[in-house]
Amino acid sequence: MSEQNSTALRTAPGASIATSEEVDGLEFLNRIKDGRWPPPAMAVLLGFDIVETERGRVVFAAIPTAAHYNPAGAVHGGFAATLLDSCMTCAVQSTLKAGLSCTTLDLNIHYTRGANDKTGVLRAEGKVVHVGRQIATAEGRVTDPQGRVIAHATTSCLIFPIRPPNA
Amino acid sequence: MSEQNSTALRTAPGASIATSEEVDGLEFLNRIKDGRWPPPAMAVLLGFDIVETERGRVVFAAIPTAAHYNPAGAVHGGFAATLLDSCMTCAVQSTLKAGLSCTTLDLNIHYTRGANDKTGVLRAEGKVVHVGRQIATAEGRVTDPQGRVIAHATTSCLIFPIRPPNA
Amino acid sequence: MSEQNSTALRTAPGASIATSEEVDGLEFLNRIKDGRWPPPAMAVLLGFDIVETERGRVVFAAIPTAAHYNPAGAVHGGFAATLLDSCMTCAVQSTLKAGLSCTTLDLNIHYTRGANDKTGVLRAEGKVVHVGRQIATAEGRVTDPQGRVIAHATTSCLIFPIRPPNA
Amino acid sequence: MSEQNSTALRTAPGASIATSEEVDGLEFLNRIKDGRWPPPAMAVLLGFDIVETERGRVVFAAIPTAAHYNPAGAVHGGFAATLLDSCMTCAVQSTLKAGLSCTTLDLNIHYTRGANDKTGVLRAEGKVVHVGRQIATAEGRVTDPQGRVIAHATTSCLIFPIRPPNA
Repeated sequence: MSEQNSTALRTAPGASIATSEEVDGLEFLNRIKDGRWPPPAMAVLLGFDIVETERGRVVFAAIPTAAHYNPAGAVHGGFAATLLDSCMTCAVQSTLKAGLSCTTLDLNIHYTRGANDKTGVLRAEGKVVHVGRQIATAEGRVTDPQGRVIAHATTSCLIFPIRPPNA
Repeated sequence: MSEQNSTALRTAPGASIATSEEVDGLEFLNRIKDGRWPPPAMAVLLGFDIVETERGRVVFAAIPTAAHYNPAGAVHGGFAATLLDSCMTCAVQSTLKAGLSCTTLDLNIHYTRGANDKTGVLRAEGKVVHVGRQIATAEGRVTDPQGRVIAHATTSCLIFPIRPPNA
Repeated sequence: MSEQNSTALRTAPGASIATSEEVDGLEFLNRIKDGRWPPPAMAVLLGFDIVETERGRVVFAAIPTAAHYNPAGAVHGGFAATLLDSCMTCAVQSTLKAGLSCTTLDLNIHYTRGANDKTGVLRAEGKVVHVGRQIATAEGRVTDPQGRVIAHATTSCLIFPIRPPNA
Repeated sequence: MSEQNSTALRTAPGASIATSEEVDGLEFLNRIKDGRWPPPAMAVLLGFDIVETERGRVVFAAIPTAAHYNPAGAVHGGFAATLLDSCMTCAVQSTLKAGLSCTTLDLNIHYTRGANDKTGVLRAEGKVVHVGRQIATAEGRVTDPQGRVIAHATTSCLIFPIRPPNA
């Protein structure tokens, strides 16, 4: 836990908000992917990594373990939900210029196949569908090493300026 | 991490499936709530507790910390998503007799208010809306200590026998 | 079709937008409910009526007929979807002051029971959950004459000024 | 209305269920597309046509008119919702063998752009994502003549035998 807390401190609100004012969304994500900036705390806690980024598309990878189990002895639905929220919201963020951020409004997930600690690396790919001035939407899929869909999702995000103009 | 792993082992697939064959869904959840059975691994990892159970309604509590932060420096949407999946699916499970289990098919979440490490205890209440033979649905809300809605959701679950008849 | 078209003309964009600049959302809906303003064309086409309005809660009623059937010979899912979009978005609108309007961003529906031309009057009740400055959410249920849930839903809406300030 | 009613009678429950016992889902849809079987009543009421079918993918077309308007003077969200439910559920049905049918469990829609009576032909394409033994999921998009996304969606369907075995 102490290591998680120290990571969390390095990604505290002040720090990360300051940085996304200076760089655009894709550069922001590239710096996390390349290890120049620390990963977000939740990604550390659950074991997620950003593995691919381009404008409008972001891929995370994660290995489900017994630490992610629900009471029924399978990977908790929250694991794929968090992966999907991550890859889709980052896909939206990858389209934003410096000074803009986004937050999830809605997250809709379909679970199509269970996962457990033998499943191996899951890949979560998020792609934007629509980017407007205030609202963006994206779609995402979590696939197993055989390419089978574990879960798929859509989201809508609210886009907002990190600092209001003239503030 | 070692503590999380040992908890996970105690809730490994074989163990939990064996037990929910013997007791109904409400008793299954009561035993976790009362500490007679170990909590599921994901609840330990994210810091969730079952705090109220009745037939058709289950409440979880959790304190968001900096360890649950997203890259924007707020609590990750996956935190509320996992809480909501937990309380709603457990609300469905609380209506099932021994030998039946359920799994999430769809999870739909609306985020209405941000949370951070100053927010305090979040309460996630799940209530069943419809329980059929194969499909059940539920609704859920995460509220902060002032009773404000942080996120709300609906879900549908597939109900299935833990062991097929005559297997 | 000619009657539907004439109704549609009376609720053409210019007319309805003009009026909701002058009255608040609840009064706007009350005038439709009381017959002082014409019903929206889609409500005429599908046979919907507004039957109850208060701030934050709106109820529609509708009778499914064979004209609403899908290829499987039951009422099309679009019938309840349209009812739910109507009652939930109107519930949001009922909270807005004059000069503001709202539009559906997301609509999430769970179908729990079929309906046919013997079902009788369906009642669709929408209630707001959260109303912010830009975004509002609501929940809704369609019930049959026995009070059984046919479908339930949530929505999020974008709130916007009918005329931009200083326009 | 008389034409709609007579169409509805020709697609009454008994008739359509009888036929989908004899042919597989794709042939069922092809017969509607080719005019050998009557269109479902709801498609007649709202002005929808099936225009493309293949295993796992179905396209509908529809022209929004003033008859589909909401109180705000734009096309009602229920129009795209009904189109999306149609194309996605039919995409699932197109994968089913004779004797199986499906019904919508969940329908999740994102609205990204308004439509009105000047928009022209909308095209709604549904594609299956996952087809299991009991549950299938699909995704869908409504696009305008310029190819812009008006709305996009996902769904989950329950697959069931039209007649129970040994009935």
